[in-house]
Amino acid sequence: MDDAHDAVAAYWAAAQARDWPAFGSLVAADVVYEAPQTRERVRGRAAYVRFNAEGFPGDWQLTVQRIVGQGRSAASWIQMSDAGDHYAGLCFFDLGTDGLITRITDFWPVSSEPPASRAHLAERY
Amino acid sequence: MDDAHDAVAAYWAAAQARDWPAFGSLVAADVVYEAPQTRERVRGRAAYVRFNAEGFPGDWQLTVQRIVGQGRSAASWIQMSDAGDHYAGLCFFDLGTDGLITRITDFWPVSSEPPASRAHLAERY
Repeated sequence: MDDAHDAVAAYWAAAQARDWPAFGSLVAADVVYEAPQTRERVRGRAAYVRFNAEGFPGDWQLTVQRIVGQGRSAASWIQMSDAGDHYAGLCFFDLGTDGLITRITDFWPVSSEPPASRAHLAERY
Repeated sequence: MDDAHDAVAAYWAAAQARDWPAFGSLVAADVVYEAPQTRERVRGRAAYVRFNAEGFPGDWQLTVQRIVGQGRSAASWIQMSDAGDHYAGLCFFDLGTDGLITRITDFWPVSSEPPASRAHLAERY
């Protein structure tokens, strides 16, 4: 597979299916995962599969909102649903020339209140 | 301009330069901005330029980390630096057939501590 969009679509389909062998087959042996918010880093396919398979228990369900791929880069926006909670997950991906995912940078924004100073500049929904 | 990557690169260059006329020229007259975390929404070019020009005072500087464009969609990851703070901003963009940005969805993740339950599955950096 050498299309970044399709690689990321397959990655999220495997995650949603908890199909960890398929998930692992999409990432490089030396894949590096980073979560800048928590400063967590995972190196290597086996450790990364385990991080996903064991690190996030529960009956979460994910829905892809958007995948954008260009060359050897991609970005995704997913919605995660877990026990009535819904939240967005944003990832940026790099791929190697063999089409495997070599780097994943993962972000999980949380809800917050905007500053009052810009309340006159936006509506709320 | 009809390349989504280049439109977003020009958007961030205009924002960094505080060149609000250039910034406004890149978005559609009926552009819709949404920030899912705060549930803020801004509709229309004039309101959106004003939101950016007046809503975020201070001497912030932005650096593009990654832009991915595909067809009429794009995603960006920027680093914002402001008074010694550094934080990531993630945006997804839709473009019209005229190359103008019609929709912007904006996320600002913040730092957090990971749960102890997955401490054995990742290193910290």
